Amino acid sequence: MVVELISVGTELLLGNIVNTNAQFLAEKCASLGLSMYHQVTVGDNRERLAEDINTALQRADIIILTGGLGPTEDDITKEVCAEVMGFKLVEDPHTRERIETYFKDGIYPVITENNWKQALIPEGCKVLDNHNGTAPGLILEKAGKAAILLPGPFNELKPLFLDAVSPYLQELQPEVIRSQMIKICGHGESQVADQIKDLIAAQTNPTIAPYAKTAEVHLRVTARAADDETAKSLIKPVVKEIKNRFGDDIYTTKEEETLEMAVVRLLKKYELTVTTAESCTGGLIAGRLVNVSGASEVFREGFVTYSNKAKRKILDVSKGTLKKYGAVSEQTAKEMATGGVFATDADVCIAVTGIAGPSTEGDKPVGLVYIACYMKDKVKVEEYHFKGNRDKIREQAVVKSLDLLRRSILTNYRG
Amino acid sequence: MVVELISVGTELLLGNIVNTNAQFLAEKCASLGLSMYHQVTVGDNRERLAEDINTALQRADIIILTGGLGPTEDDITKEVCAEVMGFKLVEDPHTRERIETYFKDGIYPVITENNWKQALIPEGCKVLDNHNGTAPGLILEKAGKAAILLPGPFNELKPLFLDAVSPYLQELQPEVIRSQMIKICGHGESQVADQIKDLIAAQTNPTIAPYAKTAEVHLRVTARAADDETAKSLIKPVVKEIKNRFGDDIYTTKEEETLEMAVVRLLKKYELTVTTAESCTGGLIAGRLVNVSGASEVFREGFVTYSNKAKRKILDVSKGTLKKYGAVSEQTAKEMATGGVFATDADVCIAVTGIAGPSTEGDKPVGLVYIACYMKDKVKVEEYHFKGNRDKIREQAVVKSLDLLRRSILTNYRG
Repeated sequence: MVVELISVGTELLLGNIVNTNAQFLAEKCASLGLSMYHQVTVGDNRERLAEDINTALQRADIIILTGGLGPTEDDITKEVCAEVMGFKLVEDPHTRERIETYFKDGIYPVITENNWKQALIPEGCKVLDNHNGTAPGLILEKAGKAAILLPGPFNELKPLFLDAVSPYLQELQPEVIRSQMIKICGHGESQVADQIKDLIAAQTNPTIAPYAKTAEVHLRVTARAADDETAKSLIKPVVKEIKNRFGDDIYTTKEEETLEMAVVRLLKKYELTVTTAESCTGGLIAGRLVNVSGASEVFREGFVTYSNKAKRKILDVSKGTLKKYGAVSEQTAKEMATGGVFATDADVCIAVTGIAGPSTEGDKPVGLVYIACYMKDKVKVEEYHFKGNRDKIREQAVVKSLDLLRRSILTNYRG
Repeated sequence: MVVELISVGTELLLGNIVNTNAQFLAEKCASLGLSMYHQVTVGDNRERLAEDINTALQRADIIILTGGLGPTEDDITKEVCAEVMGFKLVEDPHTRERIETYFKDGIYPVITENNWKQALIPEGCKVLDNHNGTAPGLILEKAGKAAILLPGPFNELKPLFLDAVSPYLQELQPEVIRSQMIKICGHGESQVADQIKDLIAAQTNPTIAPYAKTAEVHLRVTARAADDETAKSLIKPVVKEIKNRFGDDIYTTKEEETLEMAVVRLLKKYELTVTTAESCTGGLIAGRLVNVSGASEVFREGFVTYSNKAKRKILDVSKGTLKKYGAVSEQTAKEMATGGVFATDADVCIAVTGIAGPSTEGDKPVGLVYIACYMKDKVKVEEYHFKGNRDKIREQAVVKSLDLLRRSILTNYRG
């Protein structure tokens, strides 16, 4: 089954935004066993969009269109797609009601006239309720082909795809595709590839695909088979072998589990509470922990101590340490982590101090980061030299902090 | 002059990587005044690549192909493009010599046979020396059309584009393009569009394009003209009119300035320091402030008070308030903001408490968020009912918090 992706939006053609939707959808389609031969990006232009939809319908079974479902004049995806495929637009009372509910008590109480445009749907199409916006997802089926229309914003597109589109696509597929995710922290992409190059060289079914993420590598093992049991039995030995090779570097084998979810899971398991003492990451580690629903069981408070004074006052870092070694030092990181535990009633503290740039501090280079974890009366400190710009350095520091916390729990608490 | 982009590589179709090259090239082409109507992504497949090159040559004056110039079997961009455009491949002694030099003393001293493939060029084409790899850039010109071939790795593509391709394209372009960004907070996309629908309806040159961001709307006003001065003078009255209509809802007109940068700029201007007291946003407001290089002048410390106990202990929120009104209430938000200022020596505190979900708290719904700003002995509180999932609610709360801080400064300090 062949799928083609059409991203609609002049902002993509002008380079205002990176097309991360395309990567997400391509990865998901691949994991569903669909073949994708073309991705197309086109602007908010009727004629050219119609041309691209026509071409895509000729060479693919399913086309996925993203963007251009908003309420403004230049949002034309639904209108053009309906016209090309021969659908009439009619008002959907269900969607109209959802729009009314969405705006009621919302932050923008006025519903402008153009919003009702979003209640129009191609007659007879499938409507996928959007819980994060006013444009529903739509599936238009005709002559053995399907067009799937999704809103452009990622936080609307992603849940719509996972909840409604993915099951729909799965049902169309005669073969069963089963994939297993393995998420690894602590190796670069080329190192991971090197450690499993024999497995990659030998792969036919299942296949192994590596995905590089910030300070993480994800491996997806995918098998095709006539039934689910056979697919699973093809995957199992490969996953087992990868687990043997990477051991504790694997933080999860669950598709939807993020690193912070894995950390919160371990904290809960061993009944631990954690606090955070952040300098260069400025609250982002706490922010990641609070990402996890139910984090309140293990995380009660955290500190952003950006200035030296705050490090002293809140975390009791000694004046002497700051003077002798500086704010970005192993010693300061240690005292921050220790101080965090003593300032709260948490069992564990993760502390970070570093230079995110753009300017260096004295003789210390941009990218130098110390991460400390206080646990069971001991502090473990790690020194990193991250590459990249301010954002990239901070992102890597957050991932490595969560990973140090995870590894420390395993070392100290696992039987 | 119309340009079309063809990204070549099966890894893009599988979603292994994000196509950041496309964003870079699109932005650069737009700033050169080239019109881009289509971007296409295709795999390492001769037939489909040839089809896409043919189509692109029909509808564009210039096509830019990226990727597929490596030494391996599945690198076919040059071969297919030369065939489609009717060029013979010949060995280029200059490129052969550069490949020899590149490998000498390199980390891979052996030149394998397939590397010589990279010394073959379409006869008579322009060769652009690549200082960061072995595949040169190539420009093939025929019948008033040009195909520009660039290597896929960004650290090779970027300097090649800036040093050689950009000047080449500039010479072809008679027109200058100039654009001005206007970033708005406090209105939804449809409301913004509604307020300027007369301007949008009348647009020809300059054009006005709205971009919806989380709780923000960006407008880009773009003009084309024979010279820079004329383009600027076309933009000026439109920008002035938009400024008149949105006033303080506009937080910046600088392309690169983010909301947190605008906030830090204002804090610096009025010599104010800020602290944060976050519950449901869990450190993300602090994280946004620390995003700004130089934030240390205005932000020294912040608190994540996720539990009631932390709110009481760190921010001195009274037990009675928590009991009577609950943690998610106007009263608690007020006391958090007040407590934040008294717990530190900051002038201003922004405090957030809310229900990010997925579960409600008693009779309070998911999405209910109170944001308080303490400034000049007064606290302003706003109540919001955000829609969406946990992430989306938190993201909106962060933007609205930064915006409340920004507006409070304008109200209290601007002359």
